[in-house]
This record gives sequence, structure tokens and C-alpha cells, in this order.
Amino acid sequence: MPYFDAASSAPLHPVARQALLASLDEGWADPSRLYREGRRARLLLDAAREAAAEAVGCRPDELVFTSSGTRAVHTGIAGALAGRRRVGRHLVVSAVEHSSVLHSAAGHEAAGGTTTQVAVDRAGRVDPGAYARELREDTALACLQSANHEVGTEQPVAEIAQQCRAVGVPLLVDAAQSLGWGPVEGDWSLLTASAHKWGGPAGVGLLVVRKGVRFAPQGPADERESGRAAGFENLPAIVAAAASLRAVRGEAAAEAERLRALVDRIRLRVPELVPDVEVVGDPVRRLPHVITFSCLYVDGEALLHELDRAGFSVSSGSSCTSSTLTPSHVLRAMGVLTEGNVRVSLPSGTAEQDVDRFLEALPGAVAGVRERLGAPVAAASSPSEAPSLVVDSLGKRCPIPVIELAKVIGDVPVGGTVTVLSDDEAARLDIPAWCGMRGQEYVGERAAERGAAYVVRRLS
Amino acid sequence: MPYFDAASSAPLHPVARQALLASLDEGWADPSRLYREGRRARLLLDAAREAAAEAVGCRPDELVFTSSGTRAVHTGIAGALAGRRRVGRHLVVSAVEHSSVLHSAAGHEAAGGTTTQVAVDRAGRVDPGAYARELREDTALACLQSANHEVGTEQPVAEIAQQCRAVGVPLLVDAAQSLGWGPVEGDWSLLTASAHKWGGPAGVGLLVVRKGVRFAPQGPADERESGRAAGFENLPAIVAAAASLRAVRGEAAAEAERLRALVDRIRLRVPELVPDVEVVGDPVRRLPHVITFSCLYVDGEALLHELDRAGFSVSSGSSCTSSTLTPSHVLRAMGVLTEGNVRVSLPSGTAEQDVDRFLEALPGAVAGVRERLGAPVAAASSPSEAPSLVVDSLGKRCPIPVIELAKVIGDVPVGGTVTVLSDDEAARLDIPAWCGMRGQEYVGERAAERGAAYVVRRLS
Repeated sequence: MPYFDAASSAPLHPVARQALLASLDEGWADPSRLYREGRRARLLLDAAREAAAEAVGCRPDELVFTSSGTRAVHTGIAGALAGRRRVGRHLVVSAVEHSSVLHSAAGHEAAGGTTTQVAVDRAGRVDPGAYARELREDTALACLQSANHEVGTEQPVAEIAQQCRAVGVPLLVDAAQSLGWGPVEGDWSLLTASAHKWGGPAGVGLLVVRKGVRFAPQGPADERESGRAAGFENLPAIVAAAASLRAVRGEAAAEAERLRALVDRIRLRVPELVPDVEVVGDPVRRLPHVITFSCLYVDGEALLHELDRAGFSVSSGSSCTSSTLTPSHVLRAMGVLTEGNVRVSLPSGTAEQDVDRFLEALPGAVAGVRERLGAPVAAASSPSEAPSLVVDSLGKRCPIPVIELAKVIGDVPVGGTVTVLSDDEAARLDIPAWCGMRGQEYVGERAAERGAAYVVRRLS
Repeated sequence: MPYFDAASSAPLHPVARQALLASLDEGWADPSRLYREGRRARLLLDAAREAAAEAVGCRPDELVFTSSGTRAVHTGIAGALAGRRRVGRHLVVSAVEHSSVLHSAAGHEAAGGTTTQVAVDRAGRVDPGAYARELREDTALACLQSANHEVGTEQPVAEIAQQCRAVGVPLLVDAAQSLGWGPVEGDWSLLTASAHKWGGPAGVGLLVVRKGVRFAPQGPADERESGRAAGFENLPAIVAAAASLRAVRGEAAAEAERLRALVDRIRLRVPELVPDVEVVGDPVRRLPHVITFSCLYVDGEALLHELDRAGFSVSSGSSCTSSTLTPSHVLRAMGVLTEGNVRVSLPSGTAEQDVDRFLEALPGAVAGVRERLGAPVAAASSPSEAPSLVVDSLGKRCPIPVIELAKVIGDVPVGGTVTVLSDDEAARLDIPAWCGMRGQEYVGERAAERGAAYVVRRLS
């Protein structure tokens, strides 16, 4: 069944599998030991480090293997902040970083540091000028992803790296989503990545710290991996990670072109096939394999189940999925609709027919969810003369408040208002987003006894 | 070639290999996702957790998978100390814990906490009474290994757990070396282990925190593994770890008996075959597969090379091996000879003939190293009448100072003294140890212009 969630985790690349199997027999011993099995393990580890460093574009002694991309981010940020503690305790991140970066920032704040989150535009892209303005005398570290994990938008890393370099602030680039497609351009200082995103095995991350960058590893001392990644090296997985990175790079140019065309097809067709859809993320400066859209009047989790039943595995940044109840911080920072959100991320080798089958299945899946939720089908119902209406959606989860708003907006005259009472946090984002999509005016929000009152004026 | 260093890392168990291969295809997706591949990964993860918990003897929700045993120790100690910070900041450990525990303790002290190291006897065993006496009102955590990684001595964990329980101090047991042989007895509070020690793959550790134990995970938040192990789960390796733990447990009783007999053979034969050898560690209360001995007048690294050339892979806690120049803290704490140290740890399935071949090869290997170092062969040379002698061993690494001492001790009359000048830190341990083995009196140490002066009186 078509798996369209490569941005979460890619299926194991055949080269990774092959290298893993080979090194299960050759690479289980302790590479710090002096006997034959240890020396053999050391050779494998050194070769993997060289291959990975070549793919990244760094020196082998600048790169260590961590136990995950998340661990690489945690270690990289903590070590860089501690290494420049004398300079200050200010951290700059974009508002759309991966949670591992934002959680590190939250930990830094809890320990007395300060963080500035740089806003993004509606495409999810950071403005280099805005980012540069946040760099201060006491900025110890700046972080920026190479490309966004939820919407695929590429960030202007090279430009921002140059600005950071100009004021002496190290830039850490989270390259988890892009490293399989190519090296990160520009004069960055630290880089992190995760092997299972490019088709390598789980259990391997990369942390690169350029020579000359002040870095003080935190946590208990450990002599392995230059003191930057505690614990026995996961050698077979490391070998597989390096081998598969080299392999996917060899295929990257051709596969990127092929997937980009498939993603463009989805980007073009989805709004034609499904009414009331917003495609989000930069249409041009983006990862080749990721496309994200949001469907009005749709519960993201219900849509995922519907698509799963139809045989498609996709992801969602909507509030209703996975273990968290808050909507995606990325969609929120972009100011786009968070409800009915679907991320399609195509793994290498995705067949054209599977994309076409997805486009066939999607309209029915969305319509089914909307029907069950009682979403409006036609544009508007017969208008009445009430100058103002109040909709009580208290206790109802999104997208119900928006659906109820849509149902009654036609009941007030142009110029009249609808006030939606809601205690679902997602309404704060989705009601203004709906107004933007529908050409209605979002007047604002008032505190209410329970939740908030959102006021919308009918313009058309 | 016989690999006798299972205590460093065991070769992959066939069941681990099989489970790893199977779950490479089934378990690469994100277990927190709702689609088919994610649900399948979640099922595998849950099953692995149940199997591991059963082997440990805990509830599945008390056990998380970390990226290594070292990481389990670091996380366990930091979380338990933080969870009981209100009680106090005192930590108790034994002097012979694994470096991951001692490094955690050092980090704790650097952050303002205090640590008490409980001494061990010459067999490397902690005295329960002595341990209990160090538990204080402000003790936040106590740590004790189930069995020592360098000499195999088992610790009285159940007894000490009871004492800790009586005064309300949680006990963390590092079970890295013993978990494959059986569950840890007693009422402990936290437990850590490492899969590659029992024949599982690298990249998997276990951290068990009993219900009711106060625990506050440190570091950036992450929702995976109950917030106790950040990063994408290394699922194929986790499945392989759990499956192989169950498999080695099934074989443990029979294999322990078989290896115990082989180890007893080494224990008995080595002192018969090699002159001037001290076998260390508890002869009875010990791991079934580990035996450690030290050879006087031998450079540990040279002996390892000699044995490697003869086809045997063993480990050493001597000062001269691996990347560190300080002798093993374990041997030092036991007060036994650190020079010419050899640890033999037999992996499951070790053939009897290989052990016999090792016993054949060892005497020649030791003799070769001693000959090259110019070590004394006979007991003593012709005595002269000099009442006192000074040996200048400055700039010479152990075991040279001890060899030079042994060469001249016969040149002073009984009652006379030899003073050894040495600036090698290991001499501080090895000269008193030599005196103990040779029945000579260690008078003491004086500061010298360079290094120290060690005074030995000839008694026989």
C-alpha cells in the first residue's frame, strides 16, 4: 500500500539493508579495542565517518554519529550554547523549527536563557533581513532548518549563514529533511541530520561541529565520538547510514526531478478536485517530495483514517492527530488553516500510478468526512434579515466551530456579523484563516466567560 | 579466532539477527503514527517492551528503551537525582562502578552535589554494612552494579536494596553485565542494562523506573518513551534486543554451568602455568563467564598484542591499554596488581578446545613480554652487603619500575631497603601490590623532586 510519509521516516534503502547485514558480522566489536575484531570495527567506523563527511562537505573529525537526529540537535544546541556562555545566553530560532529545536530552546529558557523566535511568511519562509535583525551582542547561537518538515519550504540558509558569520554568531542548521537531497550550502557552523529520513536505519544521527566553533559537550563525560555522543557506537547502523547516504545522493538529482513533477501534479490537481482546499508552503523553493494542503470543514484525524482505509499512509499537522491536541506550530506560525491538514511526502521510487490513485481517492475521502460532520456543501443558504447572530460552539472541537460559522454566515446580511463562541484553541487560528479563504472580514476576538468570542463580518 | 571479550561486547545472537532482519521490513515506520505501517511498528514496540519487562521482572510501563546502556545510566541517575532534589543532593556509589556511573557522579559533583564512593574488599565486593552506613538523610540516590565488569565479582544487591528501602533511598542497579544471566533479585528502584552485552544489537539500552520512584527526566522534552528517551525509536534493534534477551535467558542456566567450569579451569591452571600471576575477583560469587588475572613484570598492552597475534582477543584493565593512561579504577579500588592485567570473558558457545588452546598459548606470550622487558626470571641474584639501594626509574613506564625493583631486591640484605624513584602514576599501586605478592614490606612513599620515592624493605 502506498506509503506517502517519507518525511516522518523513509523505508530502508536497499543499500542500507545490505550494509547493515554485512556489518552485523564485521562490526559488532568495540572499536576502541586493540584486538582484531576491534580494529576491524574501527576501520568500518572510520570509513563510515569519511563517507558521511564527504556527503556533508566537512572534515571527518568535525562529524560524530549520535543515536538519533533529535539527540544530535539536543547535543549540538546544548554544546554550542555552553561553549559561548561567556558571550551571552541569547538563542535565535525560527518559529517553524522541528520540535527538537524548540524543546531545546524551551529548556534553555527554563535554565535562565532567552530565546527569540523569528516569524515566517505565509509560505513558511524566514526573511533573512528579519532574522539578521534578531542577532544581538549576546547571541550565543542561531538555529535554522534547511527545509521545513511539515510544508517542505526551503529556508535561505546560505544567506543567513553569511549574516551570522558577519557578526560572529555560529549557525546550527537542522538538515534532517534535506541532507539526502544534497549538501547544505553556505558557511554554517554546526549541522545536524537523521539517517532514517534518507532511507538509512533508525538509531543514527549526525552532528557536525566545524573546527573553530566553541563547543562544550554537556552531560556526563564519555570518551566515545570525541566526547560528543556518549555510549557504545551503533556500528552496523552507522555503516548502513553512511552507505545509504552515499547511495541516495547518487540517485538524488534524477529522483528529485521525478518526484517534483509528481508533487506538482498533486499541487495542481488537489484544488481542482476538492473544493475549499488551501495548498500551503512555498510552491518553488521547496523540498522535491513534500506537498501539504488543508481542507476546510474537515477533521484531520478522520481524514487520515479515511485515507488509511483507502490504502494511503499520510501525515497531518492538524490538531486532532497523534498524541498532541494542539495544532501544528508550523501551520500556526504561517497563519494558514490548520484544520483538515494533510502532508504527502513521497519516498524515493514512488510510482506515478500510486499518485494518480491517491488523487482519485482523495475527493471521496474528504467528502465523506465533511458529510459526517454536516459541513456546508453549497456556498450559502437563504439569507435572513438578522443583523447579527451568535453561534454557541462551546465544548465542540474544530472543525465544528468553523462549520457552524459557515452554515450561518449567509443568514446575516452583508455588513452583519456572526459571533462564534468557542473554547477550542484551534478556533483562534482557523476562524481568521476561514475568513481569508472566503473573503469575509475577521473583526477580532473578545474574552468570554468560557473560551472566546470570535467576531466575523459578512462582506459578500 | 577465539573472541574472549564478551564483557565488552558479545557477538550478535542468532535470534537477534533473525529478529533484526524481520523487523527491518516491518518496523521502520514511526510508531506514533496512525496509519497501517505506524500501527504495525507500535505493535512491535509494545511486544518488545512486554518481553523485556518480563525478563527484567517489572511492569511494561516501567521500562523504556534508550539508545545505549551508557545513556540509560546517564538518564537514570540524572532523573532520579532531580526527582529527589528536595531530599538532598547526596549520591552514593561503589568505587568499582562502570565509568558511566562514575562520570555521572563527577558531573553531579561539578554541579554542586556530593558523592560518596563506598570502598570494596580485595575481591572487589562491597560490604553491605559499609554501604548502609553511607546512606544519609540527604541521600537522593544510591547506585550499585549487579556484577563488576572487569573482575566479574557479584555485589550483594538484594541486601543493599533492602537497606536502601528501609531508609527510603532509591537504589539504581547497573545490571549491564548480568541481565542476560538472570533477573536482578531484590527490591531495587531503578535498573539499567545494555543489549549488546547479552548478544543483542548495539544501540539499545534499558532503563527501568519502578512505579512510585520520583523521577524527573532532564534535558529537552520529548514525547517518545514516556519522555525518558528522546529521539525516534530504533525499532528493529529494540525488537532484536528483546527477542535475544528472551533467547539467552532460555539458554542461561545450562550455558552458565558450562562456562563456569571453563572459567574455573582457567582460574586453576593460569597460576600453575605462569609464574608471578595474581588471579583477582571473587572466586565464587561471580559472573559465570569472566576471569581476570594480572601478571607481574608485564606490560598489559604488549601482552594483548602477543595474545592477539596468537589468535586470542582479550581485554585489559592495565594502565597501558586503550586510550587512557590511568590504570583501571576497579583494580586500583581493590588494591590488587594493575600491571599485566588480562580479562577473559567467554561468549556463549565458547568451545572447550579454544580455552585449552588459550592456556597453551598464554605462558609463552607472558614469557615473551617479560623477556623483552628484561624481567627477572629466577627468584633473586647474589646478595651484596649494601644496606640500601636507590633505583632511578624516572621517565620509565610501568611495569619497568617494578621490574627494576625486583632485579635489585636481592642485592640488599634482609632488613635493607630499596628506594624506587618513579614518575609513573601506576607505580603507586603496583609497587605495594608487588610487595604483597612477594612477601616484602612496603615502607611507604616520599615526595621527590620529580615523581615520588617508593621505599621497600627486604624481608626474605
